[in-house]
Amino acid sequence: MVYLTRKAEFSASHYYHNPEFSAEENLRLFGKCNNANGHGHNYTLEVTVKGEVDPRSGFVVDLKQLKDIMHREVLDAMDHRFLNKEVPEFFSRIPTTENLAIAIWQRLETKLQRARLHRVRVYETPELFVDFYGED
Amino acid sequence: MVYLTRKAEFSASHYYHNPEFSAEENLRLFGKCNNANGHGHNYTLEVTVKGEVDPRSGFVVDLKQLKDIMHREVLDAMDHRFLNKEVPEFFSRIPTTENLAIAIWQRLETKLQRARLHRVRVYETPELFVDFYGED
Amino acid sequence: MVYLTRKAEFSASHYYHNPEFSAEENLRLFGKCNNANGHGHNYTLEVTVKGEVDPRSGFVVDLKQLKDIMHREVLDAMDHRFLNKEVPEFFSRIPTTENLAIAIWQRLETKLQRARLHRVRVYETPELFVDFYGED
Amino acid sequence: MVYLTRKAEFSASHYYHNPEFSAEENLRLFGKCNNANGHGHNYTLEVTVKGEVDPRSGFVVDLKQLKDIMHREVLDAMDHRFLNKEVPEFFSRIPTTENLAIAIWQRLETKLQRARLHRVRVYETPELFVDFYGED
Amino acid sequence: MVYLTRKAEFSASHYYHNPEFSAEENLRLFGKCNNANGHGHNYTLEVTVKGEVDPRSGFVVDLKQLKDIMHREVLDAMDHRFLNKEVPEFFSRIPTTENLAIAIWQRLETKLQRARLHRVRVYETPELFVDFYGED
Amino acid sequence: MVYLTRKAEFSASHYYHNPEFSAEENLRLFGKCNNANGHGHNYTLEVTVKGEVDPRSGFVVDLKQLKDIMHREVLDAMDHRFLNKEVPEFFSRIPTTENLAIAIWQRLETKLQRARLHRVRVYETPELFVDFYGED
Repeated sequence: MVYLTRKAEFSASHYYHNPEFSAEENLRLFGKCNNANGHGHNYTLEVTVKGEVDPRSGFVVDLKQLKDIMHREVLDAMDHRFLNKEVPEFFSRIPTTENLAIAIWQRLETKLQRARLHRVRVYETPELFVDFYGED
Repeated sequence: MVYLTRKAEFSASHYYHNPEFSAEENLRLFGKCNNANGHGHNYTLEVTVKGEVDPRSGFVVDLKQLKDIMHREVLDAMDHRFLNKEVPEFFSRIPTTENLAIAIWQRLETKLQRARLHRVRVYETPELFVDFYGED
Repeated sequence: MVYLTRKAEFSASHYYHNPEFSAEENLRLFGKCNNANGHGHNYTLEVTVKGEVDPRSGFVVDLKQLKDIMHREVLDAMDHRFLNKEVPEFFSRIPTTENLAIAIWQRLETKLQRARLHRVRVYETPELFVDFYGED
Repeated sequence: MVYLTRKAEFSASHYYHNPEFSAEENLRLFGKCNNANGHGHNYTLEVTVKGEVDPRSGFVVDLKQLKDIMHREVLDAMDHRFLNKEVPEFFSRIPTTENLAIAIWQRLETKLQRARLHRVRVYETPELFVDFYGED
Repeated sequence: MVYLTRKAEFSASHYYHNPEFSAEENLRLFGKCNNANGHGHNYTLEVTVKGEVDPRSGFVVDLKQLKDIMHREVLDAMDHRFLNKEVPEFFSRIPTTENLAIAIWQRLETKLQRARLHRVRVYETPELFVDFYGED
Repeated sequence: MVYLTRKAEFSASHYYHNPEFSAEENLRLFGKCNNANGHGHNYTLEVTVKGEVDPRSGFVVDLKQLKDIMHREVLDAMDHRFLNKEVPEFFSRIPTTENLAIAIWQRLETKLQRARLHRVRVYETPELFVDFYGED
């Protein structure tokens, strides 16, 4: 079993707000992230797949296919977007890094062919990242 | 003469649009950046000051003062903001990295005491940055 | 289960010496690190916590609380300090990166509230780091 | 149990080609990597070992020994080399990042003394890396 | 005057050899780089252009055009290539980082339209880079 | 004219103190850096030389010689040292990043042979660095 990880970057904006909370509670919990105009990040996405190495190609996954899937399922939908307004998963869920990692896992999980998805890591900034390995 | 550079990061969103252009022209020129919902970046700001080293402190500039000025003049105004809507310089100017570097220079230039401002560098992403050295 | 990691940096000095060893043995084993004047590093600390995502906040952990705990329990005690002389764990234990990761784990483990501590990673330099996941 | 990771870099060239495939199939599968003249990378190698911390030294592994083993077993053989032509593992196996990680594991596994090899990670570029944890 | 820099990466192989030198002299001067099989690097290219900011677009240069020129003039010719054998500038010149920076300058200088080329920086590794500002 | 830059890293400790100031003034000016036990950093040194490219070698400077000079003149003296106590320049001068860059310039300036020293850059942390270009 070998694990291969490919990175990609996308730029998006978001804000944090729970309509069930009062304005005060939203501000207390989310601080500057509660600004409804949104603010943004250069997100770094790391997708890790696992599988056996195909002895004929030396690959655990076709790198070009993996890149295409990441672009089609994630970057085309999220790059240069306001996550709360333009990405359906976040119409009613708060686009925290945690929820972003889960949403990206769900977009990718069934699309891979030879290898299986092992981990989705999302960096919101170089100082903060989230890992999701799927539900067991 | 010694040059000292301090980095800071802030997260903001923006979009590119010139109301004098047609929708088609805006889209052709600005591409994905023309999305009016905005998208965002983790901006990295590098501020370089120059001056003589004070023999008593060994400093060209008081680092704490420099940090305070950068926070008060730039980060407090721009971090977690939508630049087009919340930062006055960009109410009528397009918040490109070029214009952002110039605006930050203008905010900082007159605030430094011992040392003089030499350069403002702004990274929009790790792959793209702008330097401004002031007008001669 | 989601894993969230937050980074922080601190600068400290240390040296390696075992009083039960001869001077020759200390020098042979620890090399340049045996210099009793100490030398220093910009340590990078990565703290990983794990837990369920709270559906109301989208958070696995309150980021501000995590940051405060890291500062209060680790950075306030170790930043700009000589580890051997000023941090009690290292009065009689050698402040290697291994022992530093274990000491930081012990300082943090009982302080977290909603999420559980999963991993402490300490970079001594960009080329050398240690991971500790607690004792089972 | 503590995990210690040490990085090293080496520069090598390689190309991808399976003599059982037609020229068209090689080009379709391997794209630009099929160029027989070779192209190159600055590979980053991360070697992770695990073990108990020796209370007398504070080390899980003697860092100088680990560095020496990595140089003798891997870097001396692969740095500034054309992998397909000069490194025996790749005379008949394609030097993909996957196969490179496995080959490095096999070179290192039996050479460590106190600690055990846990993981070999190889970055081909900053955007692509492979992890191998050995066969179970 | 504003300076804008865009990065790109390419992977290539090369070796150093002067046919006018003896084998001993080549080896003494070029060391491991003299291996005729070649070895490789992930080169990072930084292209800096300078000019006035166009008030209508906020740009000193059309970023898409700059990217296209860098790909067409440099990356298409050098990425995944053996520089000595496949890039004409290096059929009779040694592909050192110095000569690579000069060759890239010459390829780009006349292709820019609004802005002027200011600097070409080439990183051979993260620890070694060359800057060229053109001939005066 | 071509500019070549080589990086190196060293780990050292230091503290800031001016014996002509009162304890209060030292603390106010230097903050945590005033701790007499010292604290440390992983310093990154960038040495830039300039010169014509030698057409026979393609080099502006012999890289191995440059590396040797940097090690002999700077790293052997400063790596794993307490700068205030073990490096003569800092017996009576405060080892700020500014003074460190000047001291390294003075150590290197007369040692280069073919190329001339252009700039010394010292990073104290990734967020703070100083450039010195010599006295005119």
